[in-house]
Amino acid sequence: MKEVLAIIRMNKINDTKHALLNNGFPSFNCVKVLGRGKQKVDFSMLDGIDAEALAKSSWASSLVESYRLIPKRMVSLVVKDEDVKKVVSIITDANMTGNAGDGKIFVVNIPETVRIRTGESNELAI
Amino acid sequence: MKEVLAIIRMNKINDTKHALLNNGFPSFNCVKVLGRGKQKVDFSMLDGIDAEALAKSSWASSLVESYRLIPKRMVSLVVKDEDVKKVVSIITDANMTGNAGDGKIFVVNIPETVRIRTGESNELAI
Amino acid sequence: MKEVLAIIRMNKINDTKHALLNNGFPSFNCVKVLGRGKQKVDFSMLDGIDAEALAKSSWASSLVESYRLIPKRMVSLVVKDEDVKKVVSIITDANMTGNAGDGKIFVVNIPETVRIRTGESNELAI
Repeated sequence: MKEVLAIIRMNKINDTKHALLNNGFPSFNCVKVLGRGKQKVDFSMLDGIDAEALAKSSWASSLVESYRLIPKRMVSLVVKDEDVKKVVSIITDANMTGNAGDGKIFVVNIPETVRIRTGESNELAI
Repeated sequence: MKEVLAIIRMNKINDTKHALLNNGFPSFNCVKVLGRGKQKVDFSMLDGIDAEALAKSSWASSLVESYRLIPKRMVSLVVKDEDVKKVVSIITDANMTGNAGDGKIFVVNIPETVRIRTGESNELAI
Repeated sequence: MKEVLAIIRMNKINDTKHALLNNGFPSFNCVKVLGRGKQKVDFSMLDGIDAEALAKSSWASSLVESYRLIPKRMVSLVVKDEDVKKVVSIITDANMTGNAGDGKIFVVNIPETVRIRTGESNELAI
């Protein structure tokens, strides 16, 4: 089994939830995280402007706010190995806008799973 | 080492905390998550009722609220390989009510652990 | 790829964020967790005092509050295998005060990563 862990935009949680449900994956958890990707201001776009001075100006601070942490949703579901590709594709399709900030998906090995209600383990438990 | 990750009911956090502590596992973290399991309305129980119409009615929306996300606690602790079975059993015993929604436990491999205060690593650090 | 997961003090998030950024690791996520380490009251320090009675007294309850859950930040970033050592060291340096409660770092294997915006996978995606 594998955990598929996706960091997505806050406003994509419903689309993601429905896309997973409609494709037969009703179970998942999500949590609000604060995240930061690789985005940063490209000072080369601001030719002729002193970067140091810029960093101190107030309008520039709005430009560099990409360094600030942005609220995101982290979605997690545990699936069979053979479903990983499908789930990654469902989440990608539901979240791809083509703009920076679309998020990332990580896959983690889950060697063991237990359903608490019954004590069933592994594939029976997902 | 392994991380034992459990998704449990909100009101079971104290029982779980005490059960772990009393069995020699004082360290853990928890976070509030929103989760959804496999529960859904069994429309076969509603024989003779049009499912489409039902889904639009207001009393039915309370039936189908199992599709909504439910607040849960996610508990996480990192233990030695030989303690995984015991910890899974402690958490299962503390959380098993026999009803849907009792939650799930996942086990994740943790190849490396560091205690920040001392820089100690691996089994010394848990 | 590996996920480096650190549980740190609430007030260390900015130091950690800047230390990672200044060393070339701009991407990460964080979430508020409630945690508890191994700390507990050492009743042997309270020689001659009845532990049962103590546990019921009000001033003692402040001593034993180490059993209560303490707000922490959980920081997570996914890096190449060869960067794990460096990232662990950056986080340790930014968070080591030498006092109990400095936190812990866990390393988790991440067999697969996808950037949602482009669909790129693995090392291209981090």
